[in-house]
Amino acid sequence: MRMYDLIEKKRDGFELDTDEIRYIISEYTNGNIPDYQMSAFLMAVYFKGMNKRETLDLTMAMRDSGDILDLSGIEGIKVDKHSTGGVGDKVSLVLGPMVAACGVPVAKMSGRGLGHTGGTIDKLESFEGYSTTLSEEKFISNVNNIKIAIASQTANLAPADKKIYALRDVTATVDNISLIASSIMSKKLASGADAIVLDVKTGSGAFMKEEKDAITLAQEMVSIGNGAGKDTIAIITDMDQPLGYAVGNALEVKEAIDTLDGNGPDDLIELCYVLGSYMLVAAGKTEDADMARVMLEKVVEDKSALNKLAELVEAQGGDKSFVYETEKFSKPSIIMEVPSVETGFVEKIDTSDIGAVSLILGGGRETKESEIDLSVGVVLRKKVGDKVEQGENIATLYANDLNKLSLAKDRLLNAFCITVTPAKAQPLIKWIVGKNGVKRY
Amino acid sequence: MRMYDLIEKKRDGFELDTDEIRYIISEYTNGNIPDYQMSAFLMAVYFKGMNKRETLDLTMAMRDSGDILDLSGIEGIKVDKHSTGGVGDKVSLVLGPMVAACGVPVAKMSGRGLGHTGGTIDKLESFEGYSTTLSEEKFISNVNNIKIAIASQTANLAPADKKIYALRDVTATVDNISLIASSIMSKKLASGADAIVLDVKTGSGAFMKEEKDAITLAQEMVSIGNGAGKDTIAIITDMDQPLGYAVGNALEVKEAIDTLDGNGPDDLIELCYVLGSYMLVAAGKTEDADMARVMLEKVVEDKSALNKLAELVEAQGGDKSFVYETEKFSKPSIIMEVPSVETGFVEKIDTSDIGAVSLILGGGRETKESEIDLSVGVVLRKKVGDKVEQGENIATLYANDLNKLSLAKDRLLNAFCITVTPAKAQPLIKWIVGKNGVKRY
Repeated sequence: MRMYDLIEKKRDGFELDTDEIRYIISEYTNGNIPDYQMSAFLMAVYFKGMNKRETLDLTMAMRDSGDILDLSGIEGIKVDKHSTGGVGDKVSLVLGPMVAACGVPVAKMSGRGLGHTGGTIDKLESFEGYSTTLSEEKFISNVNNIKIAIASQTANLAPADKKIYALRDVTATVDNISLIASSIMSKKLASGADAIVLDVKTGSGAFMKEEKDAITLAQEMVSIGNGAGKDTIAIITDMDQPLGYAVGNALEVKEAIDTLDGNGPDDLIELCYVLGSYMLVAAGKTEDADMARVMLEKVVEDKSALNKLAELVEAQGGDKSFVYETEKFSKPSIIMEVPSVETGFVEKIDTSDIGAVSLILGGGRETKESEIDLSVGVVLRKKVGDKVEQGENIATLYANDLNKLSLAKDRLLNAFCITVTPAKAQPLIKWIVGKNGVKRY
Repeated sequence: MRMYDLIEKKRDGFELDTDEIRYIISEYTNGNIPDYQMSAFLMAVYFKGMNKRETLDLTMAMRDSGDILDLSGIEGIKVDKHSTGGVGDKVSLVLGPMVAACGVPVAKMSGRGLGHTGGTIDKLESFEGYSTTLSEEKFISNVNNIKIAIASQTANLAPADKKIYALRDVTATVDNISLIASSIMSKKLASGADAIVLDVKTGSGAFMKEEKDAITLAQEMVSIGNGAGKDTIAIITDMDQPLGYAVGNALEVKEAIDTLDGNGPDDLIELCYVLGSYMLVAAGKTEDADMARVMLEKVVEDKSALNKLAELVEAQGGDKSFVYETEKFSKPSIIMEVPSVETGFVEKIDTSDIGAVSLILGGGRETKESEIDLSVGVVLRKKVGDKVEQGENIATLYANDLNKLSLAKDRLLNAFCITVTPAKAQPLIKWIVGKNGVKRY
């Protein structure tokens, strides 16, 4: 087999067979296919696409390029939740303890990632003493004992994806549905869960700005997941404004705690109930999503989900008192209110601008080497549809560096679009994509 | 400017401006743009194409990436002839002396190239003592003194094209009309001629198998040449069977000599008259192509073209007696006749198979390092339309290696398609492509 012929075959619109795809992935990972051939191939895929069979083969080949986690030591059906990423997305921090409190094992290993805030494990480091490094044995015994562990990824999952993604990122070949879906799903499939619930975001703060593109991506991922023998479902949700009010690491943890304590933002708790219901169904706790929701509402009401978070923090060496005394989280040196310059209704919030505010203040990583400031960020006071008076505060900035504050404030004001006519927010949950098709929620 | 943005721009079908194209070419030649970005860009060009303005800019940028020959020391209008390459194409060996004998300067510097035979300068080395290395001064003074010099390329012409071509060759991005046309024309424009006559081949032995593709390529090259301010014309000619009968280095030189001596194959001499007429018109010898043809016929008839070849050989240190005593050319150790296994009419000769026969016998280079055997090759006895009896010889093989002979013979027999009904060859000259459009010849 020669890479040249495979580039040409894809370029001319032909289907590649399983062996051909496995050849490309393994030889590229080994360094036997040079970057310049791979990038030409990826551009050919960009134009000619891959069918469902090819996309599944690509995903499986990337999954098999490195370690595959063995979670068989954990009792019960392991359900993984994955979000395509958005601004203010602290769902994992709320959903993990909720689902675990319902008796479903939550075994989450995640990376730190780049973005406007850190990842889930960065956020958890806001708890003094919390350790994100666990041995495999400790990780598994924690899940068996308290139903939940959230630790950082040490295994070498899908190295082919890592290498290919880095190349796509510099050759304008990111935006292809098969390549995006296989990249996400290869890592998910390597991380050992039995079932997968996907939260595919759409809107100004999402990777997929357009709803139809989000649906297509969801369909592709659901097809891959089920094709790989894992029960997979996707929910298309709104990211046209931040989720909840807080954006920033410790700020989001506090909001997650408030939510588990019964005082969360409506959109955040609703999304957790919906995703959680599908997770409980997938885990076999009940066959009925409405029943599952009742179970989830109960663990919030009786504080067992909140206590589960405290258990998690304690089991990983953190100070669980933070869960009950949130004023203990480290505060930045500057807290500044931002008043509105207009009177009217919030029509739109450019979500990527809000993400940029957090990044400017130091809440996220621009490169892998960046240090995150866990205390900084922004808390919105107004969301889409809210009435606002001139001079009324629309957000609070949390900062440590005075020099960055004016840039952050400008970006924040720029994000808000205020009109005279009342506006209405997008529905939060838009579509459910299962193996039998797409339906309105 | 960032290469990433330019890849994306082309990928999305936008036109690149002059500065952007010059940036890509100069930074890639300098090594500041990595191969993997360039190959992704080339694949995007493969799918999205380039318009005439972009193609001209690309050509000029590649021309300007290295030396540009200065032929101003040569008196008269310098006309360059370029062929897209075919099997048995010994036109330069015949045409150069003919045109020079008419008083038009022929200043040809060429590379050795890869293929089923060597290039023109390899073939000229069949004359004992012929030196293909000339100083620039000697080259120019030879052309001024005897109107002709044919030497090997020492200048660094269009290095960008060389680097890009090598990358295209391994990334399945050769087959794009803008890339093909700019590659050829960048070298032509760097080699300093005032006017260009292009011989674009079509058929089974040509790079462009289909006539319509050959016309498109010719139009693109004519547009580039005239856009660069050089009078350029293209002739679309048949390469559905070899040109003449001989394929191989010394064998082709002998056939060229026979042609200059008035005993050449009809197709070869006709093609030389047609191309030569356009060269004479471009050089300003006459305004009328028919008049030009009369001049060319005269220099063949009175042997002044044949004598011009002898002058050329002598001026470059070769033994000119070979021109008059062709039995002096080195002969291989094996000469084998190949008889037909059928009776009928030659319907088709797969020309690339005939090229392969020469390559198998050692007449061409498979890699840059290969040594050429100048004495080997094949001489056809029959061409398309000829009647042939079973047992009658259809070709003669010239070889030095017995082990290769049976493979060469099989390939040769495979090339001939013989039928019971009389067949007719394609017309030799098909179309003329000038700046005012395409017309039937």
